[in-house]
Amino acid sequence: MQSARVAEFDLIDLIRARCAHARADVRLGIGDDAALLTVPPGQVLAVSTDTLVDGIHFPKDTAPADLGWKSLAVNLSDLAAMGATPAWATLALTLPQADPGWVGEFADGFAALAHEHDVALVGGDTTQGPLSITVTVHGFVREDAALRRSAAQIGDIVCVTGTLGDAAAGLRMLRDSGFGTRNSEKQALSPDTLYRGGGGMGEGAPLALVPELAALIARLNRPTPRIAQGLILASRAHACIDVSDGLVADLGHICRASGVGAEVDADALPTSPVLAARFGRDDRRALQLAGGDDYELCFTVAESAIEKLLADLARSGCAATRVGRIVAGAGARVHDASGKVIDTPRAGWQHFTA
Amino acid sequence: MQSARVAEFDLIDLIRARCAHARADVRLGIGDDAALLTVPPGQVLAVSTDTLVDGIHFPKDTAPADLGWKSLAVNLSDLAAMGATPAWATLALTLPQADPGWVGEFADGFAALAHEHDVALVGGDTTQGPLSITVTVHGFVREDAALRRSAAQIGDIVCVTGTLGDAAAGLRMLRDSGFGTRNSEKQALSPDTLYRGGGGMGEGAPLALVPELAALIARLNRPTPRIAQGLILASRAHACIDVSDGLVADLGHICRASGVGAEVDADALPTSPVLAARFGRDDRRALQLAGGDDYELCFTVAESAIEKLLADLARSGCAATRVGRIVAGAGARVHDASGKVIDTPRAGWQHFTA
Repeated sequence: MQSARVAEFDLIDLIRARCAHARADVRLGIGDDAALLTVPPGQVLAVSTDTLVDGIHFPKDTAPADLGWKSLAVNLSDLAAMGATPAWATLALTLPQADPGWVGEFADGFAALAHEHDVALVGGDTTQGPLSITVTVHGFVREDAALRRSAAQIGDIVCVTGTLGDAAAGLRMLRDSGFGTRNSEKQALSPDTLYRGGGGMGEGAPLALVPELAALIARLNRPTPRIAQGLILASRAHACIDVSDGLVADLGHICRASGVGAEVDADALPTSPVLAARFGRDDRRALQLAGGDDYELCFTVAESAIEKLLADLARSGCAATRVGRIVAGAGARVHDASGKVIDTPRAGWQHFTA
Repeated sequence: MQSARVAEFDLIDLIRARCAHARADVRLGIGDDAALLTVPPGQVLAVSTDTLVDGIHFPKDTAPADLGWKSLAVNLSDLAAMGATPAWATLALTLPQADPGWVGEFADGFAALAHEHDVALVGGDTTQGPLSITVTVHGFVREDAALRRSAAQIGDIVCVTGTLGDAAAGLRMLRDSGFGTRNSEKQALSPDTLYRGGGGMGEGAPLALVPELAALIARLNRPTPRIAQGLILASRAHACIDVSDGLVADLGHICRASGVGAEVDADALPTSPVLAARFGRDDRRALQLAGGDDYELCFTVAESAIEKLLADLARSGCAATRVGRIVAGAGARVHDASGKVIDTPRAGWQHFTA
């Protein structure tokens, strides 16, 4: 419902140029009414879609390159949780203005992660409106190897990859410092602007905090989809999910789908040195149990298979840690090492809430 | 970045229940990290994605059921333009509030069209934010039968299915009556509310206009993706595109991709009785040449194949009409029956324009 000319097609060309990545199975890419793609024989297609909305899924002022990365990462994480190999993505980008500089940086962040995982951008749509990004990803997996939420069995060990709570800690520190609550058009969110002339904390903020904060912000803005680990888990783990809403909430999805319960040991949760140094016990637990956005994999595996699996994961560059057990019942319950029950502060990240 | 609980998962369950549709090739549907899907042997996967943004792609106050229909229809139209058979869709729905009534009506509109084309909803995401809808559709086509924009040949006849200009005429009439420019929360846009107590035109508006307006509004809000016609065209037409931006703009895409030019006879454009009765010649031409949202197919075909093809299309329930010819050169030029050149009023619907 806008007349006149220019720009939508230019933006698509810009994104296409920045994200160019050849794959033999892309028979026809961006530029026609639909892409034409071939799925390898013996594999099923895994498809997932996720939207990031300005101010809801990321703080306002997040750098465009980080948004490009994250919008693809959260989707690839879903493929990782199925044990699938990524192949293609489509991108629906809604922007307030046609700003080629912004779009170029966004595309560079997207392309950096896409190339890392051999993902071709095969289609998209750029539209005008409030900032929002929807990515749909496609991957391949052997049907019998796919990791389903419904496959947990009583007696399984519950594990998570990497460390938990860092992304939520990064978000909390940013909020405490006043970032992401404004709607500045110029101020991009990064460690540089945080402590080197950026808003929020002022000039007197301690420069010594920069590396520590940078690590947490990187977990928030540039999550690592655990693709390689998902491929190791495929056909060997039982159930799997990525931790986007918080461990208790996401493990709860596995419990519901599998008709089981789970017990989690809060003292066994894998913790980064930064998180351990920076937060007290209760704060740390809250961030690790209920904080979203870590994009680690939470999986369940038969006790008989776990030693070899953990060894293979450790060799992949991202170790996994035992955090609990699947039991009869319903829902995920948390206790500490002494067996004392711990209330989780909230049931994960949910939208449409007051 | 919202704490507390409820609603996102309820909305997904609601949409899933309303859109339930079984297909044997959906090995795992909504409810896991990704859907698992099988593509038939010998076919390639056709994928397309389109976003509708409130106030940009549809007037504010458009009825939720119409939005559900339209958000799928504009995507299926892209599959039609490839000659593909639809199979699956994902839905990313961003909403200001979790309103189950609104979402239920939206899902019913979506499901009505999905069932008509045997489309299964296999995944999605509901998020909070300004109203926006991104659908990604998947279909199948034999690679050698797919209709590409780049396949037009000099000497081809240019045709369009159905009639042109109705959707743009409906939009213009709505705008003239003041609809879609407000941001009323309660007032849904429909023929009923238009003339029977609705805003904009007041109580004294002539009831005799209702059926006529209803036909144009239906073209705008409930476009018919020309799936059956696309399947007839597959492997027989040369190039094909759906008319979403306006005939001249969309035929221009074919010209650019094929390295050819096109000549269009403005007096040959297929015209609905309503449009012919309601608009003068110049207005009508402007709506037909540059108005978007008709979602008819524009295709090119060798002269030797056209008679049989047009006969088959006519039998399908949606006839096609010759409107021009592919020539050497670049871009689509328009003339009238006497050969006089006609300037097209604007180069189609483009976003990010002043």
